[in-house]
Amino acid sequence: MTRDRFNLPDGIIYLDGNSLGAMPASVSARVAQTIEAEWGNDLITSWNRHDWIGLPQRLGAGIARLIGAQDDEVAVCDSTSVNLFKLLAAALDARPGRRIILTERGNFPTDLYIADGLARMVGAEVRAVPADAIASTLGDDVAVLMLTQVDYCSGRRHDMAALTAAAHRAGALALWDLSHSAGAIAVDLNGCDADLAVGCGYKYLNGGPGAPAFLYARRDLQDRLSNPLSGWMGHAAPFAFAADYAPAPGLKRFLTGTPSVIAIAALEAGLATFDGIEMAALEAESAKLSEAFVDAVEATCPALRLASPRDPAMRGSHVVLAHPDAYPIMQALIARGVIGDVREPELLRFGFAPLYNRIEEIGEAAAILADIMATWAFDRPEFRQRAEVI
Amino acid sequence: MTRDRFNLPDGIIYLDGNSLGAMPASVSARVAQTIEAEWGNDLITSWNRHDWIGLPQRLGAGIARLIGAQDDEVAVCDSTSVNLFKLLAAALDARPGRRIILTERGNFPTDLYIADGLARMVGAEVRAVPADAIASTLGDDVAVLMLTQVDYCSGRRHDMAALTAAAHRAGALALWDLSHSAGAIAVDLNGCDADLAVGCGYKYLNGGPGAPAFLYARRDLQDRLSNPLSGWMGHAAPFAFAADYAPAPGLKRFLTGTPSVIAIAALEAGLATFDGIEMAALEAESAKLSEAFVDAVEATCPALRLASPRDPAMRGSHVVLAHPDAYPIMQALIARGVIGDVREPELLRFGFAPLYNRIEEIGEAAAILADIMATWAFDRPEFRQRAEVI
Repeated sequence: MTRDRFNLPDGIIYLDGNSLGAMPASVSARVAQTIEAEWGNDLITSWNRHDWIGLPQRLGAGIARLIGAQDDEVAVCDSTSVNLFKLLAAALDARPGRRIILTERGNFPTDLYIADGLARMVGAEVRAVPADAIASTLGDDVAVLMLTQVDYCSGRRHDMAALTAAAHRAGALALWDLSHSAGAIAVDLNGCDADLAVGCGYKYLNGGPGAPAFLYARRDLQDRLSNPLSGWMGHAAPFAFAADYAPAPGLKRFLTGTPSVIAIAALEAGLATFDGIEMAALEAESAKLSEAFVDAVEATCPALRLASPRDPAMRGSHVVLAHPDAYPIMQALIARGVIGDVREPELLRFGFAPLYNRIEEIGEAAAILADIMATWAFDRPEFRQRAEVI
Repeated sequence: MTRDRFNLPDGIIYLDGNSLGAMPASVSARVAQTIEAEWGNDLITSWNRHDWIGLPQRLGAGIARLIGAQDDEVAVCDSTSVNLFKLLAAALDARPGRRIILTERGNFPTDLYIADGLARMVGAEVRAVPADAIASTLGDDVAVLMLTQVDYCSGRRHDMAALTAAAHRAGALALWDLSHSAGAIAVDLNGCDADLAVGCGYKYLNGGPGAPAFLYARRDLQDRLSNPLSGWMGHAAPFAFAADYAPAPGLKRFLTGTPSVIAIAALEAGLATFDGIEMAALEAESAKLSEAFVDAVEATCPALRLASPRDPAMRGSHVVLAHPDAYPIMQALIARGVIGDVREPELLRFGFAPLYNRIEEIGEAAAILADIMATWAFDRPEFRQRAEVI
């Protein structure tokens, strides 16, 4: 849709935006301005002069429209893991007497790790059940239902509206991890009445490696929630240097320490790649791309099994193919310029980023994959060597 | 000492490195390389090819020698506030039965806020006492003594060795915030037998606004401590996507989420400004600069009261002067190119960064201050307007 907003290396078909989005063409200039003009020249005065202090909210407002939220319901700060800890703790605190964090078995590992760490700390319990048991496990002991909207492996999309409603019927809060959906599909947090959400900035939002993450809390909840990581940025009067903590009104209380202004500048360039883009149109384009890929693979690669839902409306913007030789197949693809990634032992993942992936390159990638599957000797040792890639 | 390693605007005497260090001359090129060559060109493969995954430890090793630690005792991650939360929680967990976080009244506010947030969460208690009551309050109910080595207001330096030893005699751990000392004075964590420490990257380490922070844990403690913010970066096998958390051996377990690679690149340029610098020599230069300033102010500005220790060995690398008109005096200084900051209601702060502040400009700044004090009408309305600056 907007390929000219990105710089991608020649000869590469990049289908890994679901792990790390491509580089916006404007990002170097944007970051250089922050470094040279703001930091270098205006130094400490930039906190006011260039509104560094307002960056978490300003960037949050930029993300809000991509995920169906209001401007003052989203803030950019910390990592997804840290934000998840904050919101889960706030949810437990807001539902006294309920000690269960309910989640899905197979949820993204770091989400499970963070929930476990929190549960150990405060005497709560993480209950991880299969997807089809979520609704029936939602009892009056559940404080919060924590789910990832789009599964990092299969790409399967949860019904956010239905599961949020089920959580509410049980008296629980619903917390959504949007890491694989923000910027990829049309998320509608407000329309689903979602309570809380987190997500990362470095996948489909194109904010650069390890970009700051975001968090969301529905407006009417904000003043009733406590941030356990109560740092100075979330204080009602952050420059008063008062001895006692007083939470800022609204979502600002969920800020903690000083954010990296340089990292936020890069994310700002990433968000600018969405200027003028309607998310419904983006989701339609995503479906077109993934559909073209799946159609071609099904027609030409009988040995590959589709491990994602067949219906694009049931998945996010990535597609997974299963094969026992997933790793060497991906190495062969990369050697021919098609970059996806592998989730061991047998999943090949391909992410489709409508802002820069074009329909022609999808066909080309599928043809290269078909050629590899038809002719390649997977046991060539140079493709067997493992390298860690996230 | 190494002024040519920095770009500072012409006509500015920058005495605010204690709030935000100056911009290293190399930082733009270092960051542009990370953005263009690593992110833009090598994309997801950079996690291995450019060892993004090893950045927290590699940068930590760069900081270690500045603070008297071993390479594997320091890691770069998150913000100072988040790191403080992690280590305080680990300390409480390591001292079961002891529920007191002992600290100093007047400690840096965000440290107090974070300790309070943690204490509320786990049923611990923060006890804040005057500095001279710390030793006598160290009882068998204290899990951890949390102090800032160099006070952000007065610049007063605690005796780290003596207070750490006192904490140990009481069976408590000692946690030091080095935000105003790392890169400013010769810190000796190992020599003081310090247990835990945190610090920021954006003051004397010159890592840029909101630079990633660092944390330290003494080597023999590391495997006995738990990180409550147990994210994927601290997992023993971060790329295995296992459902259960298993902490990495050593300090790596204190990593949480994905760090900003771009922000870390900027900090790397900041740390490079210390190449070849011995910290003892840097501390001596710092003392020379602050001494020259204090001497001149005492000789020429009788209305200003020194609110820092007179002996440079008893303070960090900043000096505070008190006057009821602190704010308009600082505005007048800034208008004449001398940048320091104010801590309301009456403190003028001046930070001396030996890497780029030169003795001649110290004399010049003192002369401008003397001129202002002798001639200026403090009630000029343009200097009365408040602006928030950290």
